[in-house]
Amino acid sequence: MPKVTVYSTQNCPYCRMVKAFLDRQGVKYMSFDVGTDKEQAKKMIEVSGQYGVPVVTVDDEVIVGFDVRRLTELFGKEDGGDLYDVLIIGAGPAGLTAGVYCARKMLKTVIVSENIGGQAIESWAIENYMGYRMVTGDDLMRKFEEQARENNIRLELDRVLTLDRTGNDFLANTFTGLGIRARSVILAQGKHPKSLGIEGEGRYLGRGLSVCATCDGPLFRDKIVAVVGAGNSALQTALEMSRIAKEVHLIVRSTLKCDESYTKRYESVKNIITHMNATISKLQGNNVLTGITIKDRSSGKETDLVLDGVFLQIGWIPNTDFLEGLVNMNDDKEVIIDIDCKTSVPGIFAAGDVTNIKTKQIITAAGEGAKAALSAHEYLTG
Amino acid sequence: MPKVTVYSTQNCPYCRMVKAFLDRQGVKYMSFDVGTDKEQAKKMIEVSGQYGVPVVTVDDEVIVGFDVRRLTELFGKEDGGDLYDVLIIGAGPAGLTAGVYCARKMLKTVIVSENIGGQAIESWAIENYMGYRMVTGDDLMRKFEEQARENNIRLELDRVLTLDRTGNDFLANTFTGLGIRARSVILAQGKHPKSLGIEGEGRYLGRGLSVCATCDGPLFRDKIVAVVGAGNSALQTALEMSRIAKEVHLIVRSTLKCDESYTKRYESVKNIITHMNATISKLQGNNVLTGITIKDRSSGKETDLVLDGVFLQIGWIPNTDFLEGLVNMNDDKEVIIDIDCKTSVPGIFAAGDVTNIKTKQIITAAGEGAKAALSAHEYLTG
Repeated sequence: MPKVTVYSTQNCPYCRMVKAFLDRQGVKYMSFDVGTDKEQAKKMIEVSGQYGVPVVTVDDEVIVGFDVRRLTELFGKEDGGDLYDVLIIGAGPAGLTAGVYCARKMLKTVIVSENIGGQAIESWAIENYMGYRMVTGDDLMRKFEEQARENNIRLELDRVLTLDRTGNDFLANTFTGLGIRARSVILAQGKHPKSLGIEGEGRYLGRGLSVCATCDGPLFRDKIVAVVGAGNSALQTALEMSRIAKEVHLIVRSTLKCDESYTKRYESVKNIITHMNATISKLQGNNVLTGITIKDRSSGKETDLVLDGVFLQIGWIPNTDFLEGLVNMNDDKEVIIDIDCKTSVPGIFAAGDVTNIKTKQIITAAGEGAKAALSAHEYLTG
Repeated sequence: MPKVTVYSTQNCPYCRMVKAFLDRQGVKYMSFDVGTDKEQAKKMIEVSGQYGVPVVTVDDEVIVGFDVRRLTELFGKEDGGDLYDVLIIGAGPAGLTAGVYCARKMLKTVIVSENIGGQAIESWAIENYMGYRMVTGDDLMRKFEEQARENNIRLELDRVLTLDRTGNDFLANTFTGLGIRARSVILAQGKHPKSLGIEGEGRYLGRGLSVCATCDGPLFRDKIVAVVGAGNSALQTALEMSRIAKEVHLIVRSTLKCDESYTKRYESVKNIITHMNATISKLQGNNVLTGITIKDRSSGKETDLVLDGVFLQIGWIPNTDFLEGLVNMNDDKEVIIDIDCKTSVPGIFAAGDVTNIKTKQIITAAGEGAKAALSAHEYLTG
């Protein structure tokens, strides 16, 4: 066997996929976290000339990034022969709950997801998941994961690139080259938030920067916050926060694009300060966010604001690119479902934030996951 | 002030309503649990001639049952003047979750329910509520209740008798004489267990015939019992009782309709005797149930079984009598909702087992409760 070494960092999804690929192929390897191990980081740069991860060395050969083609040449193609009863795409609250329910129905189940926990892991304090007065998103999702893993479910850290019908079944091709066949599919791959696209954004997420005001808003009682956005959800968040926080800065890129009912109400609220035609140009702080710099888009003038929290309401993007032409979606590219989580395609079900239900909450996504699983079971056995 | 004494037992809902009524009116009273206090039980029978609770004595007057009219004459009518943003009917998983979500949206909220926890409190062991690998229904509902009570919600142990529109608002009249006005309503009052529909059923309820195995199961240690039903809750009850009772007869109308995980576990249990394609045709006994007759549905052959207890797990009827003519319902008398928990009436929302969603699970009811609350919030503020 060749000597294989993987250089990776903790939060890099491609690193996890490389390792998942090698694990599946039964390849033994050394693994170094170059985010914490400076000596190995130096060594990685020496042998590869790379300042990015993952880097894999196989004896003297250096493989940069997650090069599925080369890894497959070296270690063989994966067997995709199994036919599953259910393929669940996504391992957030909806996907993991669907997994537990499918397993309890003795369905042969595989979950494919880029991460475990979805958006939920980014909530630093959840007060509205019933059963827990207060729990971190990370802790809660760990519990969900444990419950799923206790059951006989295959869980792959991978990304579905294509999903197609093949006869009566479905075939999903993944980023790591897996071809997964299943008799039914549950779509639970959620959404990803639109980002500001500025430096430090990832670092402050969950440390003052929030993408869920319903979740995190109550933690900012009598504090100063900003809400970024111009649509209904931004205004709604600003109004909500004006009753909780001491002061709310509403940062609007151009003009308001919300319903008049919101504008009307918001005009009478004293503690909302509006910055029109403005964007955030800098995030300030050390461990936690302590302020922002906003920039007037006409004059270019920059202003510093000292504050405790920033709520992004600039939109979400459903992870539904690969579903185009397969299932019916609404204008927001959300999968359209009925009250029992059926999509327009028999055999394909959907649950959670990827769907057109309005409530995007952990408890709701979990409840929908159970629905989708029981509907899939009925489809398979009915 | 007159001397008021309430004789009650722990699990009697009318006893709780009597006390809730007196508490609301600020009436001070002595309370005796005649289920445990034999001396007071004797005294209650002496003064009232009654073998049933509640009994209230007011100086020398004896009031039998929960006599709202007489109690109102004595202690005054309740003030129903407040206008609530949301009236939630029911305090099971859906209602309590809706309550938490409404309170977090700063909506003035009242929950009216005959009990706290709904059907969920009757589950022995819940393995599929995400976040808990194993929890009793009672424990989980206590957590839900704590979460609701932490918020600023009025919670009334009472029963809604009528619900009507009054102008733009809604008015609910309750069993204890409350008139509650609210701008919106969330229906979350669940279902109640079906009965066998045979002679003597009412007479034996609580005397060998039980609809709550969690409550009454432990009283049948080393005895012979029957469980009637074919679904998950029937199998779960049969499995539980097989560990408590000497022998369990499982009486299944046609075939099993439960999760395969239950079937597997149940197949290996020696002291469960299954009677497929069978119904109960007679209940036998005098004061207490001592046996049943079961009938084979194909041959018509009847067999007598000597036993000590029968647990009914044969299904549920939605608690929707008072909604007739107000909201659209399906043939099963379930409230018809859309994917965001809206009913046919603007301002009325519904969640959980009372609705036409197929999945009747705690996690799903909770998820729907959150949806209904956020839809109500949107209706009130939109």
